[in-house]
Amino acid sequence: MSKTKKFLLSENDIPTAWYNVVADMKNKPLPPLHPATKKPLTIDDLTSLFATELAKQELNSTDRWIEIPEEVRDLYKNYRPTPLVRAYGLEKALDTPAHIFFKNESVSPVGSHKLSSAIAQAYYCKKEGITNITTETGAGQWGAALSYAAKAFGLELAVYMVKISYEQKPYRRSIMQTFGAQVIPSPSMSTKAGRKILTEHPNYQGSLGTAISEAIELALQTPNCRYTLGSVLNHVALHQTVIGLEAEKQMEMAGEYPDMVIGCFGGGSNFSGITFPFLRHKLTDGKEVRLIAAEPASCPKLTRGVFQYDFGDEAGYTPLLPMFTLGHDFAPAHIHAGGLRYHGAGTIVSQLKKDNLIEAVDIKQLDTFKAATLFAQTEGIIPAPESSHAIAAAINEALKAKEEGKQKTILFNLSGHGLIDMAAYDQYIAGDLTNYDLPDEEIAQNVAKLEKII
Amino acid sequence: MSKTKKFLLSENDIPTAWYNVVADMKNKPLPPLHPATKKPLTIDDLTSLFATELAKQELNSTDRWIEIPEEVRDLYKNYRPTPLVRAYGLEKALDTPAHIFFKNESVSPVGSHKLSSAIAQAYYCKKEGITNITTETGAGQWGAALSYAAKAFGLELAVYMVKISYEQKPYRRSIMQTFGAQVIPSPSMSTKAGRKILTEHPNYQGSLGTAISEAIELALQTPNCRYTLGSVLNHVALHQTVIGLEAEKQMEMAGEYPDMVIGCFGGGSNFSGITFPFLRHKLTDGKEVRLIAAEPASCPKLTRGVFQYDFGDEAGYTPLLPMFTLGHDFAPAHIHAGGLRYHGAGTIVSQLKKDNLIEAVDIKQLDTFKAATLFAQTEGIIPAPESSHAIAAAINEALKAKEEGKQKTILFNLSGHGLIDMAAYDQYIAGDLTNYDLPDEEIAQNVAKLEKII
Repeated sequence: MSKTKKFLLSENDIPTAWYNVVADMKNKPLPPLHPATKKPLTIDDLTSLFATELAKQELNSTDRWIEIPEEVRDLYKNYRPTPLVRAYGLEKALDTPAHIFFKNESVSPVGSHKLSSAIAQAYYCKKEGITNITTETGAGQWGAALSYAAKAFGLELAVYMVKISYEQKPYRRSIMQTFGAQVIPSPSMSTKAGRKILTEHPNYQGSLGTAISEAIELALQTPNCRYTLGSVLNHVALHQTVIGLEAEKQMEMAGEYPDMVIGCFGGGSNFSGITFPFLRHKLTDGKEVRLIAAEPASCPKLTRGVFQYDFGDEAGYTPLLPMFTLGHDFAPAHIHAGGLRYHGAGTIVSQLKKDNLIEAVDIKQLDTFKAATLFAQTEGIIPAPESSHAIAAAINEALKAKEEGKQKTILFNLSGHGLIDMAAYDQYIAGDLTNYDLPDEEIAQNVAKLEKII
Repeated sequence: MSKTKKFLLSENDIPTAWYNVVADMKNKPLPPLHPATKKPLTIDDLTSLFATELAKQELNSTDRWIEIPEEVRDLYKNYRPTPLVRAYGLEKALDTPAHIFFKNESVSPVGSHKLSSAIAQAYYCKKEGITNITTETGAGQWGAALSYAAKAFGLELAVYMVKISYEQKPYRRSIMQTFGAQVIPSPSMSTKAGRKILTEHPNYQGSLGTAISEAIELALQTPNCRYTLGSVLNHVALHQTVIGLEAEKQMEMAGEYPDMVIGCFGGGSNFSGITFPFLRHKLTDGKEVRLIAAEPASCPKLTRGVFQYDFGDEAGYTPLLPMFTLGHDFAPAHIHAGGLRYHGAGTIVSQLKKDNLIEAVDIKQLDTFKAATLFAQTEGIIPAPESSHAIAAAINEALKAKEEGKQKTILFNLSGHGLIDMAAYDQYIAGDLTNYDLPDEEIAQNVAKLEKII
């Protein structure tokens, strides 16, 4: 038999600890601030919102490794370790000397990498006696993952789903309901935050920022209930490092080390997950490796936003977070990569970007679907519109390697499949999709409203 | 770490040969007959329809093992070997002493086991210089698989998709189109067979039998074009034996041998694939193992049909096949398991059933969705409506084991996931699904029309 296509690990290779990159950062991320006092948040400030253990993980800047509980690893076994795959088909189609690898998180039964943190968050909530949880979901990947995790630990879950995705992706709603969750389109009339935006902008199609506001409001008003989030936060990035830790071992099996590691970028969960374990070698051993965030051109916080304290949500319920942001009330265009329609970047990623330890590129919608179609036809997997940003960035790098005649090793994260996103592919095939050009003035006006804390 | 959840093989363990059960059958299947002459078909009779190598495989009754070409094994590596999984979650929910294992074919990037034969068929067509292929698809699983395989080998593909699935499952149509195939809802006005049924029954929602007629007609009228089929035929069953051959090794890794092996049943492809390698030990070593086909109560050819020569398609274009059948113009109820809406069983399975070497059970639609929901909530995977028949049968056996206080080992094939079938789950959740009772008289009237050849 010829060349190895998939590099596989056994269940015993599921990491036993998550990697906390903050421990290795010279410049730590700035602290989140209490919006009223502007003082750094304490764990106590966070425990009304999150399970205590998750609040601790959120503010932990010293422990490099956090043990993964046995119960979490047991559920990881449902689909982990995921394969590392050599994209021979894509390489051949591009006629590139580059070696392209992807970590295939799309084999998760709920369709994306989100399960790695969903299982952990549901576990800690259950362990601390919490009975109800709330969350928001954009494209529905996080909501689907959390719905299964909540059911596995016997928690009641309410999901606010960004309205445009609720309508474009009804199947994800059904998936959540099949797992037993309640799903509410956001903005809704069930919260103050939802009512406010619906009266001010009656046709508003929703955004992650608004859905977060609603989920937080419901959690704060429900006894024995906590809020959970699928991206942006430090503890979410922490849980997702299982992706990169596995990939590290698998690249070793392949006998290569990546010149660059690429992840699509919404709030930062899959990007952090695939890159932080490689960044570790850059931070501690001076290893040369480029870490590239691929974000939508229509929601370009890392490439065109400002580094400033801002709210994590539309309504301003969250602490102030030091982030690259387009402003918390930025209304992103209705691109199909719903999971990337978020105004800001997590605080760790933002600090890393400020310190030039990571890079960012922006990708136009039509380029993502072109890349996605080529990937589907050559590798057999229809990628999520979100993940297609990483594919497009990887293809750009592979073509650059071809131009330069250099054999580069490229690793990207295939964060999810697009089987629930076929309506978007339909529109692409029909020629009905467009790019969205975001004028500089719109960004400038939006970030001008931010309080200058830094 | 505690118990092993998934039993994994490496790419080197992908079988090097398919298993041809006919070689080990004492009573060989009766030969297919030419409909005009009623004489046994020759390979020459078949080569106008199929690639020559596939025609040879179809009529081969002597070679026990057929070597899998290197190019086919290379593409199998995209997703094979698939995991064998211990369903601890389901066992716990049922509180059964039974050990339940499932072979997880749903990890195939196109969503089902169908790729095992699609890759092989596209390969042989390409090798023989064929440029265009046609096929039919019910739920769309076969069409999606063949679309990718055709693209991988550079073949043009036209797919006739059963109209009710075309409407209920638009995403599968989009998947096929994204891979580059042409998709036509069947019955269509593009063929004589389609025009005939549409003029006789203007609102006919289609069936596999009709779609097969249309795909055959198009293939026969197009230069350098052949027809391909995703189930029923001997060579399809042959290719699918990779499922059971892998499962055999994996059960050994688990240290158990199944008391019973269960597959859902439409035309027989996944059932044959998972069971024939185990049947081999029953035929050659007298091993005790039950092989159970789980078919829809609304399309019960094995449990309530007759054993007789019949056409494989609605219009009568195919050879006469010796099969358990409900009559080739049987119009099955519009259940959501579109892939099981076929009037007959493959000739090998039919002979095995006649000789009591396999069993069959019928499952009602509501029971399949109840089983599917329990499986989703306990194992995290939303199963295809087709596969849910096997799950329901496995649950019935696990509950019987519990009643009898016996530790049985149950293996079933999870032939595919249901992520494209969420509209059906929606209807189930809303209480809008029903069972379909099929009166004895309807079957009797339908099979009375068959010519009595046996």
